[in-house]
Amino acid sequence: MPTIPRLPSAKSAAPSTRSRVKRVPDRGHYDRETVHAVLDAGHVCHIAFSQDGQPVVIPTAYWREGDYLYVHGSTKSRMAMALVRGVPACVAVTLLDGLVFARSAFHHSMNYRSVVAFGQFELVPDAHKMAALEAFTEKLAPGRWAEIRGPNKQEFKATMVLRLSLNEASAKIRRGPPKDDAEDMAIPAWAGVLPFRTGFEKPEPDPQLAAGIALPGYLKTLTRR
Amino acid sequence: MPTIPRLPSAKSAAPSTRSRVKRVPDRGHYDRETVHAVLDAGHVCHIAFSQDGQPVVIPTAYWREGDYLYVHGSTKSRMAMALVRGVPACVAVTLLDGLVFARSAFHHSMNYRSVVAFGQFELVPDAHKMAALEAFTEKLAPGRWAEIRGPNKQEFKATMVLRLSLNEASAKIRRGPPKDDAEDMAIPAWAGVLPFRTGFEKPEPDPQLAAGIALPGYLKTLTRR
Repeated sequence: MPTIPRLPSAKSAAPSTRSRVKRVPDRGHYDRETVHAVLDAGHVCHIAFSQDGQPVVIPTAYWREGDYLYVHGSTKSRMAMALVRGVPACVAVTLLDGLVFARSAFHHSMNYRSVVAFGQFELVPDAHKMAALEAFTEKLAPGRWAEIRGPNKQEFKATMVLRLSLNEASAKIRRGPPKDDAEDMAIPAWAGVLPFRTGFEKPEPDPQLAAGIALPGYLKTLTRR
Repeated sequence: MPTIPRLPSAKSAAPSTRSRVKRVPDRGHYDRETVHAVLDAGHVCHIAFSQDGQPVVIPTAYWREGDYLYVHGSTKSRMAMALVRGVPACVAVTLLDGLVFARSAFHHSMNYRSVVAFGQFELVPDAHKMAALEAFTEKLAPGRWAEIRGPNKQEFKATMVLRLSLNEASAKIRRGPPKDDAEDMAIPAWAGVLPFRTGFEKPEPDPQLAAGIALPGYLKTLTRR
């Protein structure tokens, strides 16, 4: 019997029990490339944490740097105040890619890419906070940090940057057409995928934008994506 | 001194302390029309619940019917198994509408519509489960339920439908251009909004779709949205 070769670099097993994809395990991915690619395509994450025994989920902007997911927020927000204490957290990023229409009700589905990560956030110390905020801006709009006014002392103090290691992250992905049962293939219902697309459109200048300020290149690039 | 007239029907105050929008309270909305409109524009919600003290957040499809948010899932999923026990839950639906570019780093923002709801899910009993599943399909694709094969006994048994009352829901919405400080208005950086659009595109028929099955009208309608 031939030996089954191991995958060379991809982390093919879940990093922990709680991060293992249990429902439809074939859709689970644990390699960094896949996890990073999903995160890099999104803009909003949902962070769950517990507050006095009550689960709370809050949407917020995020960015990825190396094997960390970063968020920022007001030092006064209940989320930042909870996360900075190192409470157990869970973060999800979900990108809807389409609705899947099958011949049976049961096999209707969605195409999507998602990442769920478990762990505890850690505070990015003041010494690295400005660089992190700059990285967030520059990731999306390279060159912009130099054009705008950076945070002043008060704004800097009022902003918290937190990060979560991605070492307990998993991706779950569904792609492709419906998977109907063989005995349903003759049902004369339309079957296929209704793709869901997202993207940036023509920038809308601030009504108070001074005359003569041209649209920067990074915004043209974002719109073309 | 004139008396301030009460708003006729809109719930202008938060229904509970935990559902009051604390950060930038001006963005909070508590009337049903606003909450329903945000929910009706989305397809995926994020549900947070606690499992052995660990917060978990899971993305899933949802639909709204009256003042309830409905989800369905496998009876074997860890989420359905937890929610059916009536554990405290929190659900968020978030629609990204744009990136807001300000003249200062601090006032960069996002335009979005979101809803956060607190409560406990309740099981939709078998007597109403089939009607709920039909409503889900028909909401998105009116007429489809009659074209497809409905759930058989085994599929019906394997599917759980749960619902959450929206009586502790709040919406949070940001719209419009950046709000820079007066002293920053002369900074010559481009300012404005990069709109983020979502929508359905040209349906992709299943490669195994039998010849002669035309695209149904409800899919044409969805694509035009």
